[in-house]
Amino acid sequence: MASSSESFVDGLPVAWYNLAADLPEPPPPMLEPSRDEPLEPSRLAAFMPAALAEQEFSRQRWVPIPPEVLEAYRSWRPTALVRATRLEKHLRTPARIYFKDESRSPPGSHKLNTAIPQAYYASQQGFRRLVTESGAGQWGCSLAMACSMFALECKVFMVNVSAQQRPYRRTLMRLWGGEVVVSPSLQTALGRRLLARDQNYRGSIGVAIAESIETALGETGAGYACGSIYNYVMLHQTVIGLETAQQLAALGETPDVVIGSIGAGSNFAGLAFPFIGQRLAGKPTRFLAAEPRACPSLTRGRYRYDHTDAAGLTPRVKMHTLGHTYVPPDIYACGLRYHGCAPLVSHLVNLGVVEPIAISEPAALRAGWLLAATEGVIAAPESAYAIRAAINEAVRCRRQHTSECIVFCLSGHGLCDMEAYDAYLSKRPKISAEKASLIELLRAGKLRLA
Amino acid sequence: MASSSESFVDGLPVAWYNLAADLPEPPPPMLEPSRDEPLEPSRLAAFMPAALAEQEFSRQRWVPIPPEVLEAYRSWRPTALVRATRLEKHLRTPARIYFKDESRSPPGSHKLNTAIPQAYYASQQGFRRLVTESGAGQWGCSLAMACSMFALECKVFMVNVSAQQRPYRRTLMRLWGGEVVVSPSLQTALGRRLLARDQNYRGSIGVAIAESIETALGETGAGYACGSIYNYVMLHQTVIGLETAQQLAALGETPDVVIGSIGAGSNFAGLAFPFIGQRLAGKPTRFLAAEPRACPSLTRGRYRYDHTDAAGLTPRVKMHTLGHTYVPPDIYACGLRYHGCAPLVSHLVNLGVVEPIAISEPAALRAGWLLAATEGVIAAPESAYAIRAAINEAVRCRRQHTSECIVFCLSGHGLCDMEAYDAYLSKRPKISAEKASLIELLRAGKLRLA
Repeated sequence: MASSSESFVDGLPVAWYNLAADLPEPPPPMLEPSRDEPLEPSRLAAFMPAALAEQEFSRQRWVPIPPEVLEAYRSWRPTALVRATRLEKHLRTPARIYFKDESRSPPGSHKLNTAIPQAYYASQQGFRRLVTESGAGQWGCSLAMACSMFALECKVFMVNVSAQQRPYRRTLMRLWGGEVVVSPSLQTALGRRLLARDQNYRGSIGVAIAESIETALGETGAGYACGSIYNYVMLHQTVIGLETAQQLAALGETPDVVIGSIGAGSNFAGLAFPFIGQRLAGKPTRFLAAEPRACPSLTRGRYRYDHTDAAGLTPRVKMHTLGHTYVPPDIYACGLRYHGCAPLVSHLVNLGVVEPIAISEPAALRAGWLLAATEGVIAAPESAYAIRAAINEAVRCRRQHTSECIVFCLSGHGLCDMEAYDAYLSKRPKISAEKASLIELLRAGKLRLA
Repeated sequence: MASSSESFVDGLPVAWYNLAADLPEPPPPMLEPSRDEPLEPSRLAAFMPAALAEQEFSRQRWVPIPPEVLEAYRSWRPTALVRATRLEKHLRTPARIYFKDESRSPPGSHKLNTAIPQAYYASQQGFRRLVTESGAGQWGCSLAMACSMFALECKVFMVNVSAQQRPYRRTLMRLWGGEVVVSPSLQTALGRRLLARDQNYRGSIGVAIAESIETALGETGAGYACGSIYNYVMLHQTVIGLETAQQLAALGETPDVVIGSIGAGSNFAGLAFPFIGQRLAGKPTRFLAAEPRACPSLTRGRYRYDHTDAAGLTPRVKMHTLGHTYVPPDIYACGLRYHGCAPLVSHLVNLGVVEPIAISEPAALRAGWLLAATEGVIAAPESAYAIRAAINEAVRCRRQHTSECIVFCLSGHGLCDMEAYDAYLSKRPKISAEKASLIELLRAGKLRLA
């Protein structure tokens, strides 16, 4: 990665970083849905803005951020890089733990970083409406807000189980002008087929993607927007890592470990890609992608060509996948319930640059609780996987008496997703029975990382 | 108010502003609970830290903020002053609307501004635990977090109806180490008395205050913490207005109208008092205190001596009150369900310096929705009353062709309080029936302020 310090204005990069320009070997190409032939860019442009289809195939290292997008970013970026000193103290670790706080965007997560350019390009091209899927609702909220900024309509297919688990997110999308459809729905052929088979079908992100694309293809003036997977999404998210690199440099820090939660990959990629560019230029940083043990595409999936949606409508990409018809079990981190992982991230895992790790839900929620108790921050259940990985690394540093710099991404806040923590606290009867407040535990140093 | 520009460090004031020093006449004194005699400061010190009891009676203009408190403030202050340009555009108003964003504190409201010094002084004096009441839960969350920062235990009596309406807030308090007791409870004599009379008693802030004080008085090492009403709470909250004054000055602005939602008064006072100090020195600013029509202590209450709690345990203060046994109807803005109003604010209303206005719940929620739709910000139901008053003023400016500077306080976010907006959206069948998204309304310019 070329030095980019000259391309910052008031703490914000003026160009996205495209890792594809610096890879030792390019990732395997995207293939036609049903033929083993590389996909023509024009095929993507059939259901999404042409500018995005172009970015998908670009090998240009720096992609300028349009001024309208930069202006919108300014309303909450640059985001803070926070040193978690109270967490460090509690863990008695010599490590320095930093988190990049993406939870402070108006809709509450990093997803707005790509929602804004997607809505911008769509409005530039004269689209009237964007259609998308949403798992946890973070992406749907971000797109609804971004659409309202550029006077576009927004329709969100929200995974059934997530819509039940996260009613607040539905309300939020509606407040921001979005139309929320529970997926599977009766509005699409796929949805009708699935509901005919099972009225209570719980849905998956793959199904919601397929319904969104079917809808976008069938409506004039409608485009499909995607919250992850695609190269252009990873590209937009690099604002996270670019800002972090500059903020760390200002502190005289170089990261030893860079950590992100991983579902389809955009949060991890956003933080890690700029640093991976530096590693490819010689820096010895480690990269951890923390996925749920309940949906282990990177640690237990196969690296092969698969569809990104459940219906097989989409082009095939080479990725770590559990199979596009796989329905992950219900976990609170609904945003990570995806059968595959972005081709660029999968490629890096395959090259041995990125280490995937699987973390159990209770371990993740416990880590989220600990961050709340020490730093006051309420993390999204999705972010809790990265927190847990960071804590594990900090504990390793204590054991090895090594002072490393650990950086993780706090992808979103959990203020609308309290059910997860509520369930977690309720399942710990010992705590409430003993009326041992967290403070007492902290005081007594009894809080262990189970 | 003396110029205080020299007493700022990195955008944060180093002293709180005490309006009592600049009042043309002092407010009527606090009286003994059951005798018409001025209260001895030592009586307050029996159930709260001595430093706070001292601040309650202070006439010193500037009260230095302890370094430990300043350091804690630094983790989120100074808060942003945001120009609501998209709202202005939507209202086609020549007014300039600014809001001071207190919603970005870790627990989500301005309440942390006083929770931190209260926990700090308590820990300095060797208290082991703080006990408090909470309506909406914003104050309980803030105190739980502040207590965890200073290794104190925290017990919160949460108003029954609020605990039902805002389950997320309960979970939050527990995540931050607080113990939540639904009020009325079986833990106090008052609670047992009320529950014996009516098992489903819905509670009020006044009852919760009484239970907290009864508990604090009965336990060694326990102190009472109060989220509003007292002069020292108003004092701590002046960081809001002091920062705002400096931020406006940097923009070359002077406020024509200063607006805050009002329940017991701390949010309004925090923003307004420093500007009221300036008005007393000659500036012609107007001050609007926006209260719920459902709990109209300032617009329909009597200005007389009354207790601040429902049981008559507390000293009596002269305030606008609906009577200390009054149980306000259920509204979503539970934080504003209080029978009285801070003596200092009541005094200013009585002097004609502050104009109280009453706003209906639907009008407030509609305004909250409009802010969400235009600026992306999700306001607490409490804050929506100030938003509505600001919108009313902006509409007046349009009609009068006058370009005024309107400043209101966004006291907290509503991300944990979606029930209010959910109910609001559900009660508007026209919108969902027509599937007219907000965007369509905005585009068509059809969004009216009913």
